[in-house]
Amino acid sequence: MIKVSIIGFGNVAQHLFSAFVKTTNIEVVQIFSRTLPEGLSGQELSLFTNDYQSLQPTDLFIVAVKDDAISEVTKQFLFKNQLVVHTSGAASMDVISSGNRSGVFYPLQTFTKNKEVNFQHIPICLEAQNQADYNILEEVAKSISNQVFAINSQQRKSLHVAAVFVNNFTNHLYAIGSEICKVNNVPFQILAPLIEETALKIQTIEPLNAQTGPAIRRDQKTMESHLEFLNDENYKEIYKILTHSIQDHVKKL
Amino acid sequence: MIKVSIIGFGNVAQHLFSAFVKTTNIEVVQIFSRTLPEGLSGQELSLFTNDYQSLQPTDLFIVAVKDDAISEVTKQFLFKNQLVVHTSGAASMDVISSGNRSGVFYPLQTFTKNKEVNFQHIPICLEAQNQADYNILEEVAKSISNQVFAINSQQRKSLHVAAVFVNNFTNHLYAIGSEICKVNNVPFQILAPLIEETALKIQTIEPLNAQTGPAIRRDQKTMESHLEFLNDENYKEIYKILTHSIQDHVKKL
Repeated sequence: MIKVSIIGFGNVAQHLFSAFVKTTNIEVVQIFSRTLPEGLSGQELSLFTNDYQSLQPTDLFIVAVKDDAISEVTKQFLFKNQLVVHTSGAASMDVISSGNRSGVFYPLQTFTKNKEVNFQHIPICLEAQNQADYNILEEVAKSISNQVFAINSQQRKSLHVAAVFVNNFTNHLYAIGSEICKVNNVPFQILAPLIEETALKIQTIEPLNAQTGPAIRRDQKTMESHLEFLNDENYKEIYKILTHSIQDHVKKL
Repeated sequence: MIKVSIIGFGNVAQHLFSAFVKTTNIEVVQIFSRTLPEGLSGQELSLFTNDYQSLQPTDLFIVAVKDDAISEVTKQFLFKNQLVVHTSGAASMDVISSGNRSGVFYPLQTFTKNKEVNFQHIPICLEAQNQADYNILEEVAKSISNQVFAINSQQRKSLHVAAVFVNNFTNHLYAIGSEICKVNNVPFQILAPLIEETALKIQTIEPLNAQTGPAIRRDQKTMESHLEFLNDENYKEIYKILTHSIQDHVKKL
């Protein structure tokens, strides 16, 4: 049995806690949170503390707080030489205050409050200072997910940047599409199957090879009529720069 | 029984043909194609012609050729006053040569060769010059899909522009993400669950409300480190303009 304490009780922490309680080999022993969450049983509530001094040494501390707070929070720990990991894709391993052994336990997914996720399919990226610590992280990760990867800080940073493109920026393109539909009285949901197909296709085809549309066909007439159709100067600019980039990218094939 | 002739035998035409033969109320009577396709049975091959003169009047002609060719192809028809529709999202209804009744039968999906699609979930956008013709198109469309919409030319044009953003441009963002991963020795498939979740989320949440990431949080430190990380000037530019657009868009909330 691996004993785990969770520091912070936001979105990621809550999802991890729900996943851990379903396992047979992980026991959550303490949870640090400034406020007591609602909707938990008495037994679960007994795990909570808002006092750093009451945190006891244990096998693994998972610090699931905002990136900016990791350093400050881990400085408050009174214990020494424990394995302390954060859950951030962007923060380096050494933002964890020295005095403890640091590591990273980064589940690569967007977590929406109150929407249950199936951790089995969520990739977890691990990093540790030594093999023994890595083994602990791996056992914990594998007990909730079947996609566990050793990812060093440089690789994790690249993943984080890539995730901004494929998740945050993609969502913004959806928002633009939705607005265009709204203005023209077309239900955006007509585009849902296309959006889904585009996203699923990359599981079997390299995105570079899956590229379709007027930009890659160099269909000048269609692109001009699209630019004429768009009123928003911002959207025109996005249309031009992405078109240019698609045409530029294909040269790398 | 509605009798349908298909003009052209590219991707869209082939997928429509496969869907029609599975129905009980649609009979494909002729297929016009310059070349004979491989892998069809003798009975199916007997439907083919490469001679415009041999095309007989029938209930519906579906012209599934490249946008630029619609006008030229429909000029070759010797019959008059038949219902002739094209399958394009971008072309207007009147590119179909006069002399016949024109319309549009636009399945909104990316079709990949040799990859079977389930037409039931593919939205089909219809347009006709009169109600009687619309009713024929609707019966044909509903026999292969349960998502059938009356969409006029202006609406269809807006859908086509929106589709470039949510499909073509999104796929390019995936290609950029994939390249960033490759350069840093990270398997791109780690991002697949995130990509899927982002795409499926918009079926229940407005994309504008689903926006996450450093741009919307105005997390300057993270954005600066991402821009520093990106070497490609094109990608830096895309990062900046999409970040700006996300921050600008949120004002519309």
